[in-house]
Formats: sequence, C-alpha cells, structure tokens
Amino acid sequence: MVPKLNAMVFDAYGTLYDVHSVIAQCNAVWTERGQAVSQLWRAKQLEWTWQRSLMGRYVDFRELTLAALRYTTEALKLPCSDDTALRLLKAYEHLEPFPEARDALEALRPVTMAILSNGSPNLLEPLVTNSGLDRWITDVISVDALRVYKPTPRVYQLAVDRLELPPEEIGFVSSNCWDACGAKAFGFHVFWINRTGAPVDALGAPPDHIMHSLAELPRLISR
Amino acid sequence: MVPKLNAMVFDAYGTLYDVHSVIAQCNAVWTERGQAVSQLWRAKQLEWTWQRSLMGRYVDFRELTLAALRYTTEALKLPCSDDTALRLLKAYEHLEPFPEARDALEALRPVTMAILSNGSPNLLEPLVTNSGLDRWITDVISVDALRVYKPTPRVYQLAVDRLELPPEEIGFVSSNCWDACGAKAFGFHVFWINRTGAPVDALGAPPDHIMHSLAELPRLISR
Repeated sequence: MVPKLNAMVFDAYGTLYDVHSVIAQCNAVWTERGQAVSQLWRAKQLEWTWQRSLMGRYVDFRELTLAALRYTTEALKLPCSDDTALRLLKAYEHLEPFPEARDALEALRPVTMAILSNGSPNLLEPLVTNSGLDRWITDVISVDALRVYKPTPRVYQLAVDRLELPPEEIGFVSSNCWDACGAKAFGFHVFWINRTGAPVDALGAPPDHIMHSLAELPRLISR
Repeated sequence: MVPKLNAMVFDAYGTLYDVHSVIAQCNAVWTERGQAVSQLWRAKQLEWTWQRSLMGRYVDFRELTLAALRYTTEALKLPCSDDTALRLLKAYEHLEPFPEARDALEALRPVTMAILSNGSPNLLEPLVTNSGLDRWITDVISVDALRVYKPTPRVYQLAVDRLELPPEEIGFVSSNCWDACGAKAFGFHVFWINRTGAPVDALGAPPDHIMHSLAELPRLISR
C-alpha cells in the first residue's frame, strides 16, 4: 500500500542518471578498460563519501570524484593527464538519464518532484539542465549545504525543509540500496530501484517497495 | 623519522589476521567459490560498518558479519543453512595471523601492544586467545564500547584512554588504508601495511609510513 504522497524525491547518480554512461568516454581514452575504470571510480567515490563523513573531513563531490578518478588510474596503472581527468569529470555534467526516466517523470506529474543528491551544486545544476530533466524536477537539493554525505539522517531532513512536507508525505526513490535504507530510517516512504537483482542491504530499515526500473513507479503511485 | 613511541596499537582484521583465511572453509562448502564469497562478504561487512555508523543504527560486528554472509550467499545464489552460516562465522574466532605477525610482535617487545578493532569482544577475545597473540597483545579494545565503527574519531580515543598516553606517543598500524587515514586524522603516528600495492586513499590524512608487511615494522621502530 502506498500512502498519499505529495512529493517525490529522487536520488541522482545511479537512479535518474547512469553513472556508468562514462564507460564509453573511458574506453575512448583507455581501450577496453572503460568498465574497469568506471567500476573502481564509482566504488572509491562512494567509500570516501562514507569515510570522510565519519571522519568529519568533507570535501565536495566534484573534488572527491576527481580524486577518485586519479586513484583509479593510478591503481589500474593507466596514464591520465590533467586534461584527461578534467574532461572525464566533465562527463558528470552530461550523464545519460536511464532510458525510462523521462517517461516516468512525465507520468508522475503533477506531483512535486525533487532531487536530493550527494552531488555538489556545481555538478548537479548543469547535469539537470543539460539533460532537460529540469522540465519535471523543480528542486535540486545538495548535501553540500551540510557538508556531510548520505546516509546521514540530517541530509534527508534537507528535503523536508525545502518541500515543507512531513517525511511520511514524501516518496523517496533510489537505486542505491543503502540510500533507500537511509531514507527509510529517516522516515520517508521508500522505493528501491533494484536494477541488478541484488539482495536488500541489512541496514535495519528495508525499503517499502522494490522495483526493477523507474517505469514501474507511476502505476504504483497513482493507484 | 619515527618519534619515540610508547605503545603500538594494531588493527586486527586484515592487519594482524588474514580475513581471507576463511576462503578454504568456504571452498569446502561451495567448491571453487570460496574467493568470491570471501570478497563480497568482506566488502559488505565494511560498507555496512560505515553506513550503519552514519545512520546511527549500530549492531555489533558478530551480528553484522553474520548478516553480511547471508547477503553474500543470497547474492551469489549459494545455498547456506543456519548451521553452515554459524560454522563459517565461527571461523572469525580462528583466523590465521599473517605469517610474519608473531616474529614482528616478538621483535617489538617491550613496547606495550594493543589491538583496536571493529570486532565485538565476543569475536575478538577468542581470536586473540586461540591464535596465541595474547602473548604480546596486552589490551584488546573494541569499538563496541561506543557502538560506532571506524574511522569515527572518538573510536581512536578509546586507545588513548586505555593506554593513558597522548596520541603522538602511540603508533597505529593498519592494512586498511581508510583506517590508517582515520587514525592519522585523529593524531596517531601511523603505519600503513600496504599488502596489495594500492594507492593511498585520498582522505585528507595520509599515513606517515607505508610498508609491505609487518616484518618491516621492528626495524623502523627501534632505529
């Protein structure tokens, strides 16, 4: 059962946008190593958000993502000039939305839709504009205001404050299970987009709904 | 340059003890899948320590490690009875010290030596006794007292309080780079055992020394 939801809040990376859409650009630089680069890049990026948050050593997502790329090319022993690194970082402003994203957002109208992301505003704002998702997404909320990353509870409070709605009237959508669990622990009604068929993370707060793609969302919400 | 250190504090899992020594037991249950099990088991175990700490949803390391094994066998579609799960968890009380660990600890005498670990006392105490490392390790300190995991700064304070020494007189040894960085950010003099030749994690607090194994430690300390 889905309660009446007066806003939908989406995670950005991996949920609306495919972070692995950088694979092609990576392959153009390092033949056939694009997938390996993309995987380690994403893994380090995430680990460091958690570790830095616990350490109280926040740096913004742009800086962290650039450092994670540097780490990755060093670990994989791939050459990477400053120009190449900055060009690949720029790809984060041009990530592809998942194929079903636009139709799903269109079908969800007229519910208020927002993004709540680890991304810093200097990465997120161009991304939402470049992809045209600003047609549906009216509020782009970044954790950068608090200088701490998901799944810290007060990060989710940012959406409550911006949308001026209680948590139980907000639907939260993420393909990152730990993010879905963090949002559930906070008090949102949560939809986990389980794109890979993974088990639920044992974080003590399982998501309310599990779906395979964003396409299943509108039917579930409208009832 | 290594300053005068009046105590050495070791991480347990991956530093003194080889967590992947469970591979053989896993292989006995799931032929040729031991390495895949061990890797995902360890990865989920670590991720959840960070995520649960940020969420304020601590469960102890025994419970978390058992849940991570359950996740792993489900993800890899391997059958796992309750008996099997508990038997493999029991392996955490009988992990192998790395081959060079005993000689290194012996050579470090008579410096005070302690363990500071994510492990709960119900896992750590039997491990240290079963392996005989209690011959050298006089203090076994668990984050469980604070119900939060590394690299949260106040976890490292536990060693300061127990050993009654200022951070700068304590040497901290870990093979987990993020743990080494967390300890450095806190104020210890830090030795990272880089067993795999990985780059340094970009966490804003690089370790003071990088070594390939514990065997290099005594020469560095004694001078």
